[in-house]
Amino acid sequence: MNHPVQSSVLNQALPESLLSALLSIFDERLSTTHAVREYHGRDESSYDPMLPDAVVFAQSTDEVAATVKLCHAHGVPVIPYGAGTSLEGHVLALQGGVTIDLSQMNQMVAVHAEDLTATAQAGVTRKQLNRELKDSGLFFPIDPGADASLGGMAATRASGTNAVRYGTMRENTLALTVVTADGRIIKTGTRARKSSAGYDLTRVFVGSEGTLGIITEVTVKLYPQPEAISAAVCSFPSTSDAVNCVIQTIQMGVPIARVEFLDENGVKAINAHDKLNLPEQPLLLFEFHGSEQGVQEQAELVQSIAAEHSAVGFEWATRPEDRSRLWTARHNAYFALLQMRPGARSISTDCCVPISRLAECILDTKADCEKNEMVYSIIGHVGDGNFHVLMMVDPHDAADVAKAEGVNARMVSRALAMDGTCTGEHGVGLHKMDFLVQEHGDNAIDMMRALKHAFDPKNIMNPGKIIRW
Amino acid sequence: MNHPVQSSVLNQALPESLLSALLSIFDERLSTTHAVREYHGRDESSYDPMLPDAVVFAQSTDEVAATVKLCHAHGVPVIPYGAGTSLEGHVLALQGGVTIDLSQMNQMVAVHAEDLTATAQAGVTRKQLNRELKDSGLFFPIDPGADASLGGMAATRASGTNAVRYGTMRENTLALTVVTADGRIIKTGTRARKSSAGYDLTRVFVGSEGTLGIITEVTVKLYPQPEAISAAVCSFPSTSDAVNCVIQTIQMGVPIARVEFLDENGVKAINAHDKLNLPEQPLLLFEFHGSEQGVQEQAELVQSIAAEHSAVGFEWATRPEDRSRLWTARHNAYFALLQMRPGARSISTDCCVPISRLAECILDTKADCEKNEMVYSIIGHVGDGNFHVLMMVDPHDAADVAKAEGVNARMVSRALAMDGTCTGEHGVGLHKMDFLVQEHGDNAIDMMRALKHAFDPKNIMNPGKIIRW
Repeated sequence: MNHPVQSSVLNQALPESLLSALLSIFDERLSTTHAVREYHGRDESSYDPMLPDAVVFAQSTDEVAATVKLCHAHGVPVIPYGAGTSLEGHVLALQGGVTIDLSQMNQMVAVHAEDLTATAQAGVTRKQLNRELKDSGLFFPIDPGADASLGGMAATRASGTNAVRYGTMRENTLALTVVTADGRIIKTGTRARKSSAGYDLTRVFVGSEGTLGIITEVTVKLYPQPEAISAAVCSFPSTSDAVNCVIQTIQMGVPIARVEFLDENGVKAINAHDKLNLPEQPLLLFEFHGSEQGVQEQAELVQSIAAEHSAVGFEWATRPEDRSRLWTARHNAYFALLQMRPGARSISTDCCVPISRLAECILDTKADCEKNEMVYSIIGHVGDGNFHVLMMVDPHDAADVAKAEGVNARMVSRALAMDGTCTGEHGVGLHKMDFLVQEHGDNAIDMMRALKHAFDPKNIMNPGKIIRW
Repeated sequence: MNHPVQSSVLNQALPESLLSALLSIFDERLSTTHAVREYHGRDESSYDPMLPDAVVFAQSTDEVAATVKLCHAHGVPVIPYGAGTSLEGHVLALQGGVTIDLSQMNQMVAVHAEDLTATAQAGVTRKQLNRELKDSGLFFPIDPGADASLGGMAATRASGTNAVRYGTMRENTLALTVVTADGRIIKTGTRARKSSAGYDLTRVFVGSEGTLGIITEVTVKLYPQPEAISAAVCSFPSTSDAVNCVIQTIQMGVPIARVEFLDENGVKAINAHDKLNLPEQPLLLFEFHGSEQGVQEQAELVQSIAAEHSAVGFEWATRPEDRSRLWTARHNAYFALLQMRPGARSISTDCCVPISRLAECILDTKADCEKNEMVYSIIGHVGDGNFHVLMMVDPHDAADVAKAEGVNARMVSRALAMDGTCTGEHGVGLHKMDFLVQEHGDNAIDMMRALKHAFDPKNIMNPGKIIRW
């Protein structure tokens, strides 16, 4: 998929003095090979790669600061790169420049189990963090499908299946270490669980997608592993039955840990990919956390709500391996769907609406997909009113891409008309810049632009993302 | 208590053209009388009043916008005023100007019970909101002691006794309507429960204390009223026993709704004020929300933890009137303490530390109070690691004030050394500006200043608060 901006092949190479200064810091950890640049010029979106001029592999906040300082002096763009799992073109080097790969910043800084906090370098992934916590009795709940880096998750305000119970990166980030656009190092907060001390710099950087500064360390909240966990799956005759079951569950205040919706297309795909035999109907996947008694109570209540909405085949998965099998399948949905149309790439979009409008928003969006004969699935973290549309397109077929983009644009307009947002958890990147304006209006966008200009006056921090200069 | 800044008596009066333009909008809702100006030039801090030159009583966002537009054109300061219950000098008119009293903006805009959201004008107080919600089965949990306005609560990032379970205004504000420094009206978010759509303007304004814009409408999350509530009170032989009981409760993940600590001085004061007979020892006050079964389970668990920490006199308050009596007493602690030293004013400060350091921080601060012979109490939302020191001082006795300020400064230094924050929920106002610098360091303060300059280039929005220009 092409994007109507300057292609990276047109970029001037980096100034020689910048390159040699970077080489003296990074030596073999600097690369200008085409393969490395191409790898870093793409994400999981359907955009064609846009290559940076060089990639450095940083191992410390000081190295990031030194790199940014040099790029700042030369007016050269800097793009942070975590795990490359973003979905809206976040890491593409629109104007070339230097990509800072943070994956080697993968050290834990501290686990304070007694305070339920952990501090990690930005390249630590969520799964790595949970491995590190394994024997502590604690866990970190935020789980976008991919094994994203904590820095990237903070930068895109990620959430995922557990957000309905535990919140998103917005609620779970206590503090960040950030390198500012002129290469200074700041700490945005402390390990205190709440604070009224001045402007909320943590929340300014959470969700800023590398456009205001580079996150190099992340301090997050942890949670005690629940005494008991159980999962359940059930099927519904229609999408609206499934969604209405969720709405009632939330409105009754059941403290459900996860509730995921898959439409019949999604179920079909994971059946094929993960060798499951789920009924190929709209499906909900639940998880309950709490005491033994509490989990049982929640589960019984939800089962009775589901029955009122014509659920069939309510099945329990209490053994860890059964739960894990279901959730692995859910997290593989993206890859499972790609296999439904070989050679395709996914245009994956999301939106989030007040929960009372969720059924209507999903149904209208499904109808639009059907009308346009998309190979698609709708999958959602429906407890939050958040759902995804994954459309398998041939990225080189302009008509196919245009159809998908039409579905996307109409979904966003629909969500905004319902007082929802153009993206619940994917972020803006390149792909939703116009939708952001549509959502917030010119005056609020002016405030965002004022913030960008104040924090990055030379426009070198991941330029061309979120808002136009 | 004096503050070493320009006194409002030195201010020039407002430009005649501004005054007449404001008069044409507000007519009798504009006042320049000394009594009204003095009332609006003070809060619950111990500062002497600093008077604005005029007070207008706004009834709509448009009136606020018109006022700010006029003041912007004339370079005159604008100070928003809600319920006047702030504690750190937030609303004092340091440089004169126009105070906008928002208490007549007390209309509900919308309650969306099915989505668990409500939108209210900024002058609606938390108690009013809960009265409006009474028959909906929902409630709004955030409760700083005072019956503060929602606008003021958002502006100071308020929290209170329920924050350990439900979060603070940071987590519970979905969207704001804000009048910017040049008089434009923006909406910072939607009613979607999560969003990754651009910079988090909502969180930029939450906690900005009127220095970046004026909040005129607030959209908050609501919660289903719990099926069951119970409260309990118990006493401990020492502060550290009480605090360690809380630490263990939190570390075990008990989803406690409230847990409040009162030292023996606080208990004495509320016994006198509310005619109670609580043992005059360190005390914890608990509240549990959930299903009948869940509440019982939590309460039994906490009772056994308390017993391990030598708790005595564990008493249940399951009847609403008994619960209400206890919590009313807790919320009256501030006034009860004032009566312990007639004619005194309270220097009320707070800090918040990682919970593992809480006992140490409280004990050292208590020792400091004792050493300085303060009339004081330490009271805390200890589940969050947040506590208050209330010191009754003669505001006109410089030595007395200096002693209290010494205790305050040492408490803040202690909290910061423990990776805590200089204020958990009171905010910065006038009183904690130096501590803010101490906490964040010059580089982070520079970013806050860049934000202030970008959003309020003429420095007219509540000038002289949070950070120095």
